[in-house]
Amino acid sequence: MLQGIYAPIPTPFGADGEIDWNSFKENLQWWGKSSLQGLAVAGTNGEAVLLDADEKAKAFSFVRDNLPAKMKVIAGTGCESARATIRLNRTAAESGCQAALVINPSFFKGSLDDDSLYNYFMHLAESSPLPIILYNMPRNTALNMSASLVVRLSAHPNIAGIKDSSGNIVQIGEIINKSAEGFAVFAGSANFLLPSLVLGAAGGTLALANIMPEECVQIQKLHEAGCLDDAKYLQMKLMEINSAVTALWGVAGLKAAMDLLGLYGGPPRLPLLPLDDKNKESLQKIMHGLQLI
Amino acid sequence: MLQGIYAPIPTPFGADGEIDWNSFKENLQWWGKSSLQGLAVAGTNGEAVLLDADEKAKAFSFVRDNLPAKMKVIAGTGCESARATIRLNRTAAESGCQAALVINPSFFKGSLDDDSLYNYFMHLAESSPLPIILYNMPRNTALNMSASLVVRLSAHPNIAGIKDSSGNIVQIGEIINKSAEGFAVFAGSANFLLPSLVLGAAGGTLALANIMPEECVQIQKLHEAGCLDDAKYLQMKLMEINSAVTALWGVAGLKAAMDLLGLYGGPPRLPLLPLDDKNKESLQKIMHGLQLI
Amino acid sequence: MLQGIYAPIPTPFGADGEIDWNSFKENLQWWGKSSLQGLAVAGTNGEAVLLDADEKAKAFSFVRDNLPAKMKVIAGTGCESARATIRLNRTAAESGCQAALVINPSFFKGSLDDDSLYNYFMHLAESSPLPIILYNMPRNTALNMSASLVVRLSAHPNIAGIKDSSGNIVQIGEIINKSAEGFAVFAGSANFLLPSLVLGAAGGTLALANIMPEECVQIQKLHEAGCLDDAKYLQMKLMEINSAVTALWGVAGLKAAMDLLGLYGGPPRLPLLPLDDKNKESLQKIMHGLQLI
Amino acid sequence: MLQGIYAPIPTPFGADGEIDWNSFKENLQWWGKSSLQGLAVAGTNGEAVLLDADEKAKAFSFVRDNLPAKMKVIAGTGCESARATIRLNRTAAESGCQAALVINPSFFKGSLDDDSLYNYFMHLAESSPLPIILYNMPRNTALNMSASLVVRLSAHPNIAGIKDSSGNIVQIGEIINKSAEGFAVFAGSANFLLPSLVLGAAGGTLALANIMPEECVQIQKLHEAGCLDDAKYLQMKLMEINSAVTALWGVAGLKAAMDLLGLYGGPPRLPLLPLDDKNKESLQKIMHGLQLI
Repeated sequence: MLQGIYAPIPTPFGADGEIDWNSFKENLQWWGKSSLQGLAVAGTNGEAVLLDADEKAKAFSFVRDNLPAKMKVIAGTGCESARATIRLNRTAAESGCQAALVINPSFFKGSLDDDSLYNYFMHLAESSPLPIILYNMPRNTALNMSASLVVRLSAHPNIAGIKDSSGNIVQIGEIINKSAEGFAVFAGSANFLLPSLVLGAAGGTLALANIMPEECVQIQKLHEAGCLDDAKYLQMKLMEINSAVTALWGVAGLKAAMDLLGLYGGPPRLPLLPLDDKNKESLQKIMHGLQLI
Repeated sequence: MLQGIYAPIPTPFGADGEIDWNSFKENLQWWGKSSLQGLAVAGTNGEAVLLDADEKAKAFSFVRDNLPAKMKVIAGTGCESARATIRLNRTAAESGCQAALVINPSFFKGSLDDDSLYNYFMHLAESSPLPIILYNMPRNTALNMSASLVVRLSAHPNIAGIKDSSGNIVQIGEIINKSAEGFAVFAGSANFLLPSLVLGAAGGTLALANIMPEECVQIQKLHEAGCLDDAKYLQMKLMEINSAVTALWGVAGLKAAMDLLGLYGGPPRLPLLPLDDKNKESLQKIMHGLQLI
Repeated sequence: MLQGIYAPIPTPFGADGEIDWNSFKENLQWWGKSSLQGLAVAGTNGEAVLLDADEKAKAFSFVRDNLPAKMKVIAGTGCESARATIRLNRTAAESGCQAALVINPSFFKGSLDDDSLYNYFMHLAESSPLPIILYNMPRNTALNMSASLVVRLSAHPNIAGIKDSSGNIVQIGEIINKSAEGFAVFAGSANFLLPSLVLGAAGGTLALANIMPEECVQIQKLHEAGCLDDAKYLQMKLMEINSAVTALWGVAGLKAAMDLLGLYGGPPRLPLLPLDDKNKESLQKIMHGLQLI
Repeated sequence: MLQGIYAPIPTPFGADGEIDWNSFKENLQWWGKSSLQGLAVAGTNGEAVLLDADEKAKAFSFVRDNLPAKMKVIAGTGCESARATIRLNRTAAESGCQAALVINPSFFKGSLDDDSLYNYFMHLAESSPLPIILYNMPRNTALNMSASLVVRLSAHPNIAGIKDSSGNIVQIGEIINKSAEGFAVFAGSANFLLPSLVLGAAGGTLALANIMPEECVQIQKLHEAGCLDDAKYLQMKLMEINSAVTALWGVAGLKAAMDLLGLYGGPPRLPLLPLDDKNKESLQKIMHGLQLI
């Protein structure tokens, strides 16, 4: 039901550092006209850890209210504590979102073994009014969710899938192979979308889908149609811009790319810094080379 | 001025998961009678990442109000965003705390190079009414603050010191050697207190000081008096219990040890779990062997 | 020219710790009748780092002499020093091997940046009578060869390809995408064979091919024929045994599996230990479940 | 018996890449007049992994023959295989060396858990005619020998000590605290010599001792005499040059420093490269600042 390509959208801030709701609305109108299956709000690219709980709550309903009904909204609700995450799961449900994206807590990594994380996510699954999508992002959390943990959790009817941003294709294969029927695995980056689809992934939640939604959707369509050569060609093409926009420059790169496209990117919040002029120029060249601008 | 031994206190929760202020008060009375230089509130052992901003604010003033005036209170204010940290720095100052302990943000580790962190901490130093103590905790953040970054930051008059929990004695030595006059370096664990003092550390902020405050203070006194053999003997003795209570079992171990001592430990918040019975028994044996109980 | 599936064969030792040439010959006769494109001698599974230079030299010619001419022999020649590697490259050429597999040196990892490794491999490429296949094995070397380094090296006419055992599918994709025309990329493990082929890999050098050569070859054939569903089914099936035989138990697991199949595995050399009885039993169950025995 | 300060000497190569025995002799005469307790041959700074077994054997006897009898010679004999290490242990004994320095094997790190390494070192201890000094060098091996493993091994009468280059002062403290009576712990770098001595280390095996032997010996003397302030002052001074010569530039830095001092450094072997001109200039400034040249 959830399968397809999602964009994990950035949160637009004005010069005063506050959320710029007008720009946000314009961005949403643009994405609303795309072929995307939906959007993910307050994920890594949404600078979730730099937002207050109130801001997240408002963003959930704002995005839901400004998107066509057929598009799904996945709310990023994961915090370090079960307590705060549970509250946001409820808020997200009340806002009409379709699923909650829950990153694993990671600060106390020395204590968070597989059993602790299993207990944590089962506790959330029991209490959440929305289906939960696990979110594995070891590059940021420095704590990988193992295939065996994810497989165990997949048995719970309220745990619907995982966004795996590890890029570990063997782990992704093992999860797909052994998880419960209907459990949806989403590639967490355009960099490994096609290999994941080939192994049976249900789609992707891709930073690149913010700025190149149609090309990302096209890879999945080509794969489904059995046009593997075309899919591979497109995969290779997207890898270059994706590495620059997301892997190398992170949120600042994505926001700068949105500005260059005529959408609103704006500055990230401190401690993040906007892309400097030299890197902006490099980005411009890459996007120009791909005829995006 | 800040030099000496501090306990980074745990936050006591009741069976309902809420802060148990009565038990908190009793713990504070016990620490208040100790030889400690002061307490650190809402640090790692205080489960800071599992507390709301309101809870932290209340804890700052509660601790300040329930301790003798001569004891210092260091407020753990560091969040992922500059915005939230700045707010807490102000709250801590209004509560009468003496310094703010600011852990480096780490979620966006791919973007947080030395220059970004320098910019972040300089921004905080300019805006904070309290002197800032940097807090390096790479075991939890997976992002070490380098000696050269800390040395650069030490030049700011409102950056007073660092709690370095890395255990990297070469890094600690380099910071002491090159940082600005008066910059105070605190060992972040009893495990490397004496080696740090020998190189010129100003003291320590030690989980173990919660349950063995006098022994921790004694190491510093013995070092100052030139009784190196006695200091070494005590250091070795403390290493064993410290490894169990803090390194191995984390917050759950510290809280269980407090319960065994007749103080109030209680359960940690989810995703953390209380020490299981088997480990509690091991802890009891270790503490019995040291004649603590 | 080199493309296809290779088995990186183990080196059989007798009870006295010396190479058991008779058993070696019998194993070679079995592999010689398979559909494999060739064998790799003295790689990781060949316990290369536990062999003397003389033993390697003898193994190169022994394998070449005991295999059908149509099968290719790739000689593992990489040592920590250029000096020793150059010698073995010459020996391998004199033995009639078709290519040299050269793992990157790694002991001095602090000094071996991309430029040092580029210089090293260019030096080898100039002096080697055989085409060189780079060998990236970061799980053992703790030093990954970056995509950009490999792409630079691919321009040299005597550097023919890479065995990439990193499992990093994004890196594999980048290398395929940007390396020189004709540069052959081999998946270093059956665990990620199909995803690599989908992105354009030339084949694989797979521990699993020692014991299940036909199934490994079949994945490549199914992919070439466009039978992606069947290829995926087989990939998933092989992942389970492969994880046990190679990832979990290493050389000892592979040797035990060969013993169970009626080939000669025998004991590894110290410091490696043979599989213990409990794990042997688990292995037997897995292989029985797959109807291998 | 072994306690004191040792220099792990570099191996001098001529322009042709062969060992330059004449220059080697001159270097040995210089060290032979120093206050050092002895030398370590064919360790990390001796480029052991780039030497043939024959070259190591010749170096052991050459060093022994060209040093005063009162100076101890520790032979670096550790290879990846037990087989090769055992041979070198015998050779070292026949050459009149006093102890064998055995680094843990590390290539098969996935299989080398504490039990495997325990078995390996016990096997060596039984067969070695010389007392064994364990050698922990995780920066190069990417495999740390745990305190509990070392403590277990310390019980064997033929395992005399450890050179711990980890820089992990807590681990060093734990080993000293729990190892068998008489087991000697050597700091593996001048960077943490004093803190190790304070906890009870028996001495150090220090790259810096190659070029500043007297200052290194002086730290231990000052510590023994209870002159902690002077020892600390010297420790801080040595940290700067040590970080440049060994941590930053590795073997190439050490060899360049020897050249600048009028000893023979010469080029390292490939894949290592000599220090480039820019870094040589920086090194010259550092050494000039310390009045070494």
